[in-house]
Amino acid sequence: MNSVPRILVFDIFGTVVDWHGSIVREVSARWPQADADAFALAWRAGYQPAMEAVRSGGRGFVKLDVLHREILDGLLPRFGLGQLGDAERAELNRVWHRLAAWPDSVAGLTRLKARCTICSLSNGNLGLLTDMAKHAGLPWDCVLSAEVFRAYKPDPRVYRGAAEVFDAERGEVLMVAAHHDDLAAARACGLQTAYVERPMEFGAAHPKDVSPQPGNTWHARNLLHLAEQLGC
Amino acid sequence: MNSVPRILVFDIFGTVVDWHGSIVREVSARWPQADADAFALAWRAGYQPAMEAVRSGGRGFVKLDVLHREILDGLLPRFGLGQLGDAERAELNRVWHRLAAWPDSVAGLTRLKARCTICSLSNGNLGLLTDMAKHAGLPWDCVLSAEVFRAYKPDPRVYRGAAEVFDAERGEVLMVAAHHDDLAAARACGLQTAYVERPMEFGAAHPKDVSPQPGNTWHARNLLHLAEQLGC
Repeated sequence: MNSVPRILVFDIFGTVVDWHGSIVREVSARWPQADADAFALAWRAGYQPAMEAVRSGGRGFVKLDVLHREILDGLLPRFGLGQLGDAERAELNRVWHRLAAWPDSVAGLTRLKARCTICSLSNGNLGLLTDMAKHAGLPWDCVLSAEVFRAYKPDPRVYRGAAEVFDAERGEVLMVAAHHDDLAAARACGLQTAYVERPMEFGAAHPKDVSPQPGNTWHARNLLHLAEQLGC
Repeated sequence: MNSVPRILVFDIFGTVVDWHGSIVREVSARWPQADADAFALAWRAGYQPAMEAVRSGGRGFVKLDVLHREILDGLLPRFGLGQLGDAERAELNRVWHRLAAWPDSVAGLTRLKARCTICSLSNGNLGLLTDMAKHAGLPWDCVLSAEVFRAYKPDPRVYRGAAEVFDAERGEVLMVAAHHDDLAAARACGLQTAYVERPMEFGAAHPKDVSPQPGNTWHARNLLHLAEQLGC
């Protein structure tokens, strides 16, 4: 079970990049009067409910860019930003395309890439993930997304689909994430799992419990620590 | 019309990598008695008819790896290699995952990537293209494939789908290929087109006509020449 996997697939938001810090920086620079911390948290809080409409079958598959924009349109008035025009909203929505990597991410991925195939496996759409990789220097071998499988994690089609893309046994694939629910769904499909501690995912004011859970194959402080454990 | 495109999508077999030379090298090294040149040409000759079964709707979408293997199984006896077992056939079939780049490809793509988003847009499947990029050092920003769109070029869904992935106007996307028919189909969808001369695509014994055709936006001797024309 603890054999070194051939394919590593990565959750992105919170695991590889710092969505909270990136959004807070942009929003507070442009609109100093807004509560940027609460704004970032509210935007992200709309994420699961928006995808749930697709997962439940109530709505056909739409890209995360579209869902992010709908959530944004709903919350701007609450933060005193209801006057923003369409172009400004579109530009702000693209903040998800330019999120900053955690400090260890590029170095960790580079080490992991030397021995394994490394691949995003995110609910973010392909264009978002491609722009992000270019912006943050993430050295993916392949950009995979919910968009390829027309289903949002934790739908099992996403995890199974990733293994099928590489003609891999499920146990040859390792899902890496900072979220135990994502990992539990991957594990249920037969993937190995690695939990990555990101205690500041929701900002320094809202530290996250990053305790190990016994079901995971690996538990790492960050991506360099994961590379070390995998012998990369 | 000749504005510099934002997204560059590349045909792969023959355009970025040398399928004929790579197959000839592997086959002649392992089975010196076989006619490696004829073998490579015969394998490739099965490519369009195999995809046509999918394009015509007569067969559901299957990955190119599967089609390559079916063609291979059909031609081995003709080359005195009918005795090869399943594992040897599977290994030989993966030669398409380890094709060598043309000498200018990595340097050309690296220059183009500095200014544009560069992306494969091949009938090869995602796993094949990812392995190839790792093996040959191709620095894609994103690996796109017929597999993502469940359709084989020149099906317009592939070209249109690539533009949609990046929320791009069709005219912001440039299709790069060494094949005029691929470019004609991309042009019919509104993409810019760049023809790349690959006179040795079918081997030195079978030089190809690489004359310009007037419909293309750009005509380049190789990918470095394309980068120069695009100001990269």
